[in-house]
Amino acid sequence: MRHWWGRAEPAHTLAVETPALRWIDPPEGPVIALLDQTRLPGAEAIVTCADVPALVDAIRRLVVRGAPMLGVAGAFGVALAAYRDDDVAAAAAAIEKARPTAVNLGWGVRRALAAYRRAMSDEADGPERAAARAVVAEARSIEAEDAAASESMARHGLALVPDSARVLTHCNTGALVSGGEGTAFAVILAAHRAGRLAKLWIGETRPLLQGARLTAYEARRAGLPHAVLADSAAASLLAAGAVDIILTGADRIAADGSVANKVGTYGLAVLASHHHVPFVVVAPVSTIDLDTPDGAAITVEQRPAHEVTSLAGMQVAPEGTPGYNPAFDVTPAALITAIVTERGVAKPPAAGTLRVLTAATGKLDGAAAAVYVERWGP
Amino acid sequence: MRHWWGRAEPAHTLAVETPALRWIDPPEGPVIALLDQTRLPGAEAIVTCADVPALVDAIRRLVVRGAPMLGVAGAFGVALAAYRDDDVAAAAAAIEKARPTAVNLGWGVRRALAAYRRAMSDEADGPERAAARAVVAEARSIEAEDAAASESMARHGLALVPDSARVLTHCNTGALVSGGEGTAFAVILAAHRAGRLAKLWIGETRPLLQGARLTAYEARRAGLPHAVLADSAAASLLAAGAVDIILTGADRIAADGSVANKVGTYGLAVLASHHHVPFVVVAPVSTIDLDTPDGAAITVEQRPAHEVTSLAGMQVAPEGTPGYNPAFDVTPAALITAIVTERGVAKPPAAGTLRVLTAATGKLDGAAAAVYVERWGP
Repeated sequence: MRHWWGRAEPAHTLAVETPALRWIDPPEGPVIALLDQTRLPGAEAIVTCADVPALVDAIRRLVVRGAPMLGVAGAFGVALAAYRDDDVAAAAAAIEKARPTAVNLGWGVRRALAAYRRAMSDEADGPERAAARAVVAEARSIEAEDAAASESMARHGLALVPDSARVLTHCNTGALVSGGEGTAFAVILAAHRAGRLAKLWIGETRPLLQGARLTAYEARRAGLPHAVLADSAAASLLAAGAVDIILTGADRIAADGSVANKVGTYGLAVLASHHHVPFVVVAPVSTIDLDTPDGAAITVEQRPAHEVTSLAGMQVAPEGTPGYNPAFDVTPAALITAIVTERGVAKPPAAGTLRVLTAATGKLDGAAAAVYVERWGP
Repeated sequence: MRHWWGRAEPAHTLAVETPALRWIDPPEGPVIALLDQTRLPGAEAIVTCADVPALVDAIRRLVVRGAPMLGVAGAFGVALAAYRDDDVAAAAAAIEKARPTAVNLGWGVRRALAAYRRAMSDEADGPERAAARAVVAEARSIEAEDAAASESMARHGLALVPDSARVLTHCNTGALVSGGEGTAFAVILAAHRAGRLAKLWIGETRPLLQGARLTAYEARRAGLPHAVLADSAAASLLAAGAVDIILTGADRIAADGSVANKVGTYGLAVLASHHHVPFVVVAPVSTIDLDTPDGAAITVEQRPAHEVTSLAGMQVAPEGTPGYNPAFDVTPAALITAIVTERGVAKPPAAGTLRVLTAATGKLDGAAAAVYVERWGP
């Protein structure tokens, strides 16, 4: 049996405690060490990025991915530029452009850049090195806040999960994309610990199979009852009444409550509505972008055709076959039952609640954040 | 670049005129020669079946597939048993059970068996050999009727295709599954010849990628403007208004107009309804099964988990990951705009029209068949 990851060991023999991202600072200069998510579940290979172009390449190739984790990675990327005495503003702009849809990337980068500028103006003596340290501290804060946000999202989301729940999820939203246990996957883990998870249905998530590769890997580690299915098999599961709730993450939430997420999410939302099954999005407040008024204003990243005409480097369609390969789609607010954040739950029409949830813009306030739970509608 | 089909030649250098099924009758005894559809688009490998167990295996492994072609293959399988002096009734039963969902398989087998029994009772002298010849003649009739049916379906279906049509299709419904140009694909070819096809969107059709592998191969041969997409990307295409009509085949049509077809079809039908796009099923009358009252009575074949946890023999999910892998799903009649057959078009509620269309049960009457076009509704 050949393997996606190019070697023969079964996945479950591997050590699995490698975090998705580490900042390592040896005497010869800092690097960002990334667990290569393109090679999971079989190989736990590490990609080290010693400069910003290497990090940008890793972000583009999806070595590191997932909305919250991109915020962390972006901030550490600015730190890398600061330590190397690169043009920090130019580096920040380059990182922010690496992927256009996930708002957290730009958010993390801008927070890091602001920390850099504050430190540069505060410190008269050796400001560059002090500023670099300040950026690392800010990136670590983002990571820690992300872990705290995961816990809060899990708590708020759990309240929406029924007993004996059969949960359907899409793509990958666990520890690989977060400083903590993730977004939707953190809710799923909380449901499992509360004895409420009867089954986790995992859409394989074509073209890059983040569900089959990464969520199945995390589900197996956590001992969840689970099964992987072709994305197109979800419809008949819903028709059979075998799904009680759909939980997904988000890459960008517009001011009107529209959600950009992994391609396939919108189709699941339509199916959930057709079958009267709750469709719940779980994302930190940093994913909410009030500057994007609605779904139509969200830029959807188009990725290369070969991701769909081939698989893991293996050609499946005839050579030269054109492909249509959007990385994301946009789900209108009206199809979303609830948006779970670390500060509370927004229900449609979400616009007002989203503004309240993001009122303390920028840095999150952790456990002290007020929790707002509002009904969607007048 | 590795290839699905295990060798390096690009698909477009191959000769492509191999029919999906041939009956070959050399002095040492007849065989059924099948173009191995599991290895397309790159390799045109032939699998020869000299006995019924070999044919049953080929049908199960999807070497030969597609509703109309399974009818032809089933009939030739009965011929093989007759030539070999096997127990023809037992052979017919074994072939019919090879795949449970496609009604055409059992229909072709029963027609061949009936021809065998008629010939056995008619012929006093050397009845077995004469009966075997009669079964081959019946199988060739099914094949020829299928070709004529393709032409008629294309003509009826074309009337439903608008100018500058952007057509979305799923799975594979062309010459590989038919004695002629197929079902939905025959309509698409007719639209192309009539200058009406602006774009063919091809859902890749996980888990076995019949869209990316086989429909892309047929689209390329025919020079159609086309692109392959992940099945889950169809939803955003529909939302963008980039699809004017969805055309699919069918594996079994129940008396109430419910349609069993490749997994993913039902989800597309829900999406078509949500976006007010016509959803049209194209299938010969032999696909209509009046003995199956409704969708709930259709047996959906469950296939092995490894088809979804691996791809072309390559593991993608962690070893041992459970999979949910139905081969088909069922679309209720209410979501179907029209069912196009060689005898005319049924519109919802289809039940009455379907009874009229199938009134001349069994053998189809080719060009002489009456054409019924009825509105769905009172």
